[in-house]
Amino acid sequence: MNSRRRGILTVISGFSGSGKGTVTRELISRYKDNYWLSVSATTRQAREGEAHGVHYFFVSDERFKEMIAQDEFLEYAEFVSHSYGTPRKSVEEHLAAGQDVILEIEQQGAFQVKKAMPEAILIFLVPPSIEELERRLRGRGTETEAQIRARLEQAAVESEYMELFDYLIVNDQVDHCVEDIHHLIRTEGSRTYYMKEKMIDLQEGLQAYRKEA
Amino acid sequence: MNSRRRGILTVISGFSGSGKGTVTRELISRYKDNYWLSVSATTRQAREGEAHGVHYFFVSDERFKEMIAQDEFLEYAEFVSHSYGTPRKSVEEHLAAGQDVILEIEQQGAFQVKKAMPEAILIFLVPPSIEELERRLRGRGTETEAQIRARLEQAAVESEYMELFDYLIVNDQVDHCVEDIHHLIRTEGSRTYYMKEKMIDLQEGLQAYRKEA
Repeated sequence: MNSRRRGILTVISGFSGSGKGTVTRELISRYKDNYWLSVSATTRQAREGEAHGVHYFFVSDERFKEMIAQDEFLEYAEFVSHSYGTPRKSVEEHLAAGQDVILEIEQQGAFQVKKAMPEAILIFLVPPSIEELERRLRGRGTETEAQIRARLEQAAVESEYMELFDYLIVNDQVDHCVEDIHHLIRTEGSRTYYMKEKMIDLQEGLQAYRKEA
Repeated sequence: MNSRRRGILTVISGFSGSGKGTVTRELISRYKDNYWLSVSATTRQAREGEAHGVHYFFVSDERFKEMIAQDEFLEYAEFVSHSYGTPRKSVEEHLAAGQDVILEIEQQGAFQVKKAMPEAILIFLVPPSIEELERRLRGRGTETEAQIRARLEQAAVESEYMELFDYLIVNDQVDHCVEDIHHLIRTEGSRTYYMKEKMIDLQEGLQAYRKEA
């Protein structure tokens, strides 16, 4: 890898219940020197154990609206109860410094990122089967049957747009899934897009062998 | 990996002296169940130990011209002394059967393949530095200084087109380089382009959760 290259932006998305949160946390914890996880802004209240600037930037509704107005979000989503968004500036600073950045966001947000930064890698995480997805959602034991049904209806909608992602990763075992994503990002670093410095070095080294026009 | 998917076509190219032949042979020998190496047609004479249909298909000038006329080549190149070409049919048959195919060919041929099959992965192998490239070319001990210079002049020309490849792989150690290419092709298998069957399975599984329009 060329240390001077621009960082790679990877978006991890997936169905509710696909395990994208677990996989992202494990990726970051296993390869903490490789990746920087973007911290989202949200208008919801901090829960027990959540720290401002670590888990989220907790902001007021007013401040969130102001951030939208000033184009401070790379992507954002407004829901009835609260909103979430990815601050653009910190992502761009880390990429410019050559750090690989991870965003864990919803499907619509992933498409907003791709539009703003076409070089971003979009990964969609899926369970091995829908039966397994149902098992995982029910296994949480924290939601009503109606809430689970709403999540599955949302998955049905999202399943229509999976092909707009670059990669589809089946989360069968968290461990394998994390390694697949890590290899995928390492591989992306070998794209000629990220190897410009190396190409220039080689072209310069071959200068003496250029035939005169 | 979905065993029913179409095979992945990977083109390995690189400067003369980049080690593409060694890397390709090692990749095929290490992962013989994963890859099928395309056999080229050539008009040159078979050398000691070369078998028809194994190392090359040895054909007459007349037959080669006929193959061009009948569009039987995926790519080909005609030189003063002899010609080389990749028969299209066997490549397409292996891909259709879900086998991953490797072509080891020159730069111009790589671009012909990309034009015919845009989903092909183009890999360009380079040495760590031009000093190392010179060392490797001289180290062979089989060529005159004029022949070595001609190869470096050819590399200078090819270096202008490296960015048209998908990936640039630095061949520092054959072992690492082979693993990089193997991971790269495995990663490619997770592209949504190759995951259509899985996406259809998931969409069908979610059918029951579709809201009526």
